[in-house]
Amino acid sequence: MCAAGQSLLECAQQLGVGLSGICGGHGLCGSCRVQILTGSVSEPTSIEQQELSAHELREGYRLACQTYPASDCQLRVPAESMSTSQRTQVEGLELDISPEPAVSAYHLKLQAPSLSDLHGDAEQVLQSLEREHQVSCDAIDIDVLRNISAQLRSRDWQTQASVREQEVIALGPWPSRQLGMAVDLGTTKIAGYLVDLNNGRTLAAEGTMNPQISYGEDIISRVSRITSSTAEGTQMRKLVVEALDRLAADLCAKADAQTQEIVEAVVVGNTAMHHILLGLPVAQLALAPFVPAVRGALDIKARDVGVHIAPGAYVHFLPNIAGFVGADHVAMILATEVARAEGLSLALDIGTNTEVCLAGDGKMTSVSCASGPAFEGGHIKHGMRAASGAIERFRLVDNDVHYLTIDGAPPVGICGSGIVDVLAQLCLDAVLDETGRMTHNHPRVRTHEEQWEFVIASEEERDGHPAITITQKDVRELQLAKAAIQTGIQVLLEAAGRFQEEIEQVTIAGAFGSYIDVSSAIAIGMLPSLPLSRFRQVGNAAGTGARLALISCSKRAESQAVARDAGYIELATVPNFMQIFTEALNIGQHTHKGG
Amino acid sequence: MCAAGQSLLECAQQLGVGLSGICGGHGLCGSCRVQILTGSVSEPTSIEQQELSAHELREGYRLACQTYPASDCQLRVPAESMSTSQRTQVEGLELDISPEPAVSAYHLKLQAPSLSDLHGDAEQVLQSLEREHQVSCDAIDIDVLRNISAQLRSRDWQTQASVREQEVIALGPWPSRQLGMAVDLGTTKIAGYLVDLNNGRTLAAEGTMNPQISYGEDIISRVSRITSSTAEGTQMRKLVVEALDRLAADLCAKADAQTQEIVEAVVVGNTAMHHILLGLPVAQLALAPFVPAVRGALDIKARDVGVHIAPGAYVHFLPNIAGFVGADHVAMILATEVARAEGLSLALDIGTNTEVCLAGDGKMTSVSCASGPAFEGGHIKHGMRAASGAIERFRLVDNDVHYLTIDGAPPVGICGSGIVDVLAQLCLDAVLDETGRMTHNHPRVRTHEEQWEFVIASEEERDGHPAITITQKDVRELQLAKAAIQTGIQVLLEAAGRFQEEIEQVTIAGAFGSYIDVSSAIAIGMLPSLPLSRFRQVGNAAGTGARLALISCSKRAESQAVARDAGYIELATVPNFMQIFTEALNIGQHTHKGG
Repeated sequence: MCAAGQSLLECAQQLGVGLSGICGGHGLCGSCRVQILTGSVSEPTSIEQQELSAHELREGYRLACQTYPASDCQLRVPAESMSTSQRTQVEGLELDISPEPAVSAYHLKLQAPSLSDLHGDAEQVLQSLEREHQVSCDAIDIDVLRNISAQLRSRDWQTQASVREQEVIALGPWPSRQLGMAVDLGTTKIAGYLVDLNNGRTLAAEGTMNPQISYGEDIISRVSRITSSTAEGTQMRKLVVEALDRLAADLCAKADAQTQEIVEAVVVGNTAMHHILLGLPVAQLALAPFVPAVRGALDIKARDVGVHIAPGAYVHFLPNIAGFVGADHVAMILATEVARAEGLSLALDIGTNTEVCLAGDGKMTSVSCASGPAFEGGHIKHGMRAASGAIERFRLVDNDVHYLTIDGAPPVGICGSGIVDVLAQLCLDAVLDETGRMTHNHPRVRTHEEQWEFVIASEEERDGHPAITITQKDVRELQLAKAAIQTGIQVLLEAAGRFQEEIEQVTIAGAFGSYIDVSSAIAIGMLPSLPLSRFRQVGNAAGTGARLALISCSKRAESQAVARDAGYIELATVPNFMQIFTEALNIGQHTHKGG
Repeated sequence: MCAAGQSLLECAQQLGVGLSGICGGHGLCGSCRVQILTGSVSEPTSIEQQELSAHELREGYRLACQTYPASDCQLRVPAESMSTSQRTQVEGLELDISPEPAVSAYHLKLQAPSLSDLHGDAEQVLQSLEREHQVSCDAIDIDVLRNISAQLRSRDWQTQASVREQEVIALGPWPSRQLGMAVDLGTTKIAGYLVDLNNGRTLAAEGTMNPQISYGEDIISRVSRITSSTAEGTQMRKLVVEALDRLAADLCAKADAQTQEIVEAVVVGNTAMHHILLGLPVAQLALAPFVPAVRGALDIKARDVGVHIAPGAYVHFLPNIAGFVGADHVAMILATEVARAEGLSLALDIGTNTEVCLAGDGKMTSVSCASGPAFEGGHIKHGMRAASGAIERFRLVDNDVHYLTIDGAPPVGICGSGIVDVLAQLCLDAVLDETGRMTHNHPRVRTHEEQWEFVIASEEERDGHPAITITQKDVRELQLAKAAIQTGIQVLLEAAGRFQEEIEQVTIAGAFGSYIDVSSAIAIGMLPSLPLSRFRQVGNAAGTGARLALISCSKRAESQAVARDAGYIELATVPNFMQIFTEALNIGQHTHKGG
């Protein structure tokens, strides 16, 4: 897929792999370390001999910016090479609810046993909870029991018991914090939050890459890897479990805490990420009718998930709605409260799969649109993730281009928000017609490698580096992507018998959605043409929803109600789907209307 | 401890290690294979070169009958070298109750999902249980979920769901059996039973050695090994878990079943065996006031125990009463129904620790007596376990000895029931006086190695092999052992204010208890002097109790009531304990009396 003479780093950036290249590809920062799995590449340069140990070189580690492929190659990109300069979305809506966590802590003062008082250690704990706190438990987690005797004796028979439903899930020193971890497990990125369960405060937030990305960028490619090799499924599960363990450790390091203090976790993710993490079967997710193995909420012991927090802790998994509308969507609905909106309300989480929810009249319906990776820079010739040097804003004024890059660095590619801007500006300036055809007589339009392209930064403007352009093929990719989203919205409106003008609020969640220029998105027809005041960009609402479910059992119950009550439309079953989709391929503003 | 010129097999037999020696120590059967861990021994003989592979010899394997120690040695005795010809007690009281198991099976006929019916696989199972069987479940075990999609699809959407409380713990083909495994986990031996949960029938029974025996014969030595090395604790736990896995496989092989068909297990054992298997702390068990980490009944996922049966199955552990009165005692009380006896009833399980229970007037009290290994052949010069060639019956008639050996084999030592007979006969024939002192002018009494001993089989009678004798020191050991049991009974009677004549039934459980001659046991004062018709020998009642708790939830509830209601007397706290014990040291019949 890559041109001859391109380094692995350049190839990676072109393919949308968010490989870090802080120094701009000069072999100075060592941040683009990759491992060559198959295929032949150029010999290590002297810079690499210096940056990498002999052991690393033997293991196939190379600097992507110094390595030139001589054949098709398979690479593993270590997580640290991906996340370094990547913007990860860990902000989100603020929490403002009373804590009501699933786990409560109680202070116990016990009596040392004597020959005349022979209670078992476990029974002392259970009886003290009952007697002193009127809390009736019927079990103590086996891993807690395995340490109970030393714990009680070393703390002079005082302890803090963490109780979840009717089970003691942790014993710790008294007084100590009760910590929780909320995780938004995305296909590409993982956002984690450490929360004090007693006051609901977020103590630390942290983003990291999903290391499964080396097995495929999107859900379908990962699922098909697992379907053809259970060993790869096991490995992918292991990778993400390890990432969660590291995330927990990093969050705790920031808050001066121990991972054993985490007595509850909540994980939200799309249905595939949910299933892979839990080791659930995924083959049926990729085949019609795309059913999940499990829809409902799950409480699974952390040890059965494989993560290392408090020994007896549970991980709560929010419910999924369908094979392609997962718990992250439920969490987003929970956080944005669209289900409670009085008027008609639309909420979107734009990504490789875009989930859209239309709520109103006490009803709520969702669809999943296969919008593809274009808005994340994938399958776009010079597309890239939101890393340093990515063009994130673009304007075309009197045939002059103006752009902003992330960190103000020299441009190296275009990220999602920049791509939407480019498409909108080319459309507004009639460089593209409604069908997406590129005019051939604009000063910045040229042919290159037998394809028409619009030059954003020319070879001269980049001091001899290859030009950054948007090609006719890129435009076609983007038309497919925006049409998918637009179709989802249209199908929902038609099913509800409503018109787009009736939508009172549009909530845009997710990293990409937070950075796009809404006017541009309206201009290309991706978002409905409504006054800007009706839009809000809320950042990582799924992460916020996960935190809400972490600190509040009421919110957890609400998330189950959302999943239970949410209608779901499988786009493949909509009779006029192809007609709507074909119309939506046109660029520019449309009137979304109901039936 | 061993005399020069004794083979390892002879040493082992003398020390009470039940090492198999089927051929009588002639290197013919290969059954006494041991592994030398430390210490120096004689060179391998030509017989060993023939019997053992080069690899085995390199690993330190030797035939104990051919190997002579040249220093103190540490040996590992493989389980197969111990159990081959060992009588293991797997019979017991018959079961005659209606099955009422913890796990019920339901036949489900599901609909394949379609684009218009998008239920998750898990939800289909839960809804079908609710709709077709009015069974409301709120969870499916995670390991069941991990296979659910393939299971349903490969069986054309028909399945059998095993439900325990509100959880689906297994999905299997329909129709299939629901099997359960009951285990009596003894310090020395493990008895296992495979039961059909639907009809309560025992499909297979199997006994094996507790492989932890290489870490010490009795509870205290194993606990102290763990206390000084957690690694040894982990290893001991691993050994017994592996033994349970093998037991399950052997039982299933006998019944043409798969271990995955076992959907529930029940384990009973003394408190230490219970704690070690579960990885619970044991240090406090060996120190006053000897409290268990957990007294109550436990339901632990089989995977958290480490055993491999149905993936979502639980192991139910019957409750313990105290640090030295464990779930095996509870199971024995359950099986023998002493708690329900109208009159005064006594039940004993004689072993290294002997638990005694006195029930009557709706009350029930237990004690644990440190009776030591003498009745299992331990610490008795020619004592041995109940293996081939052991003298199990003994009579002294007009100074002539008469004995029976197990399998009618030439005598190689004396097992527990034989030892009781010998002691009783020597006592009745005035070879021993009441204080246990051996007369010096009996034709079969002699001095040997500066000790008086009674010759059961002389060198001449054994064709030149060393004589089998009971030494004055052996008699002292046996006095301590029987005094411990007698004291336990006496303390219970005094606490209840009752006399031994009032005891209407004496139930003797356990392997040793099944084989002893009750008259002999009465003659030496170990058992109360009552008409023989009041005694019953019930075999492995603990194993029967485990089976009862396996097939019946009512029996399980009853076992919890037993543990809750059972009084317990810690002998160390009885003011006149030493006085009672000292009196009980005398051999012969006493009058057990109450206060």
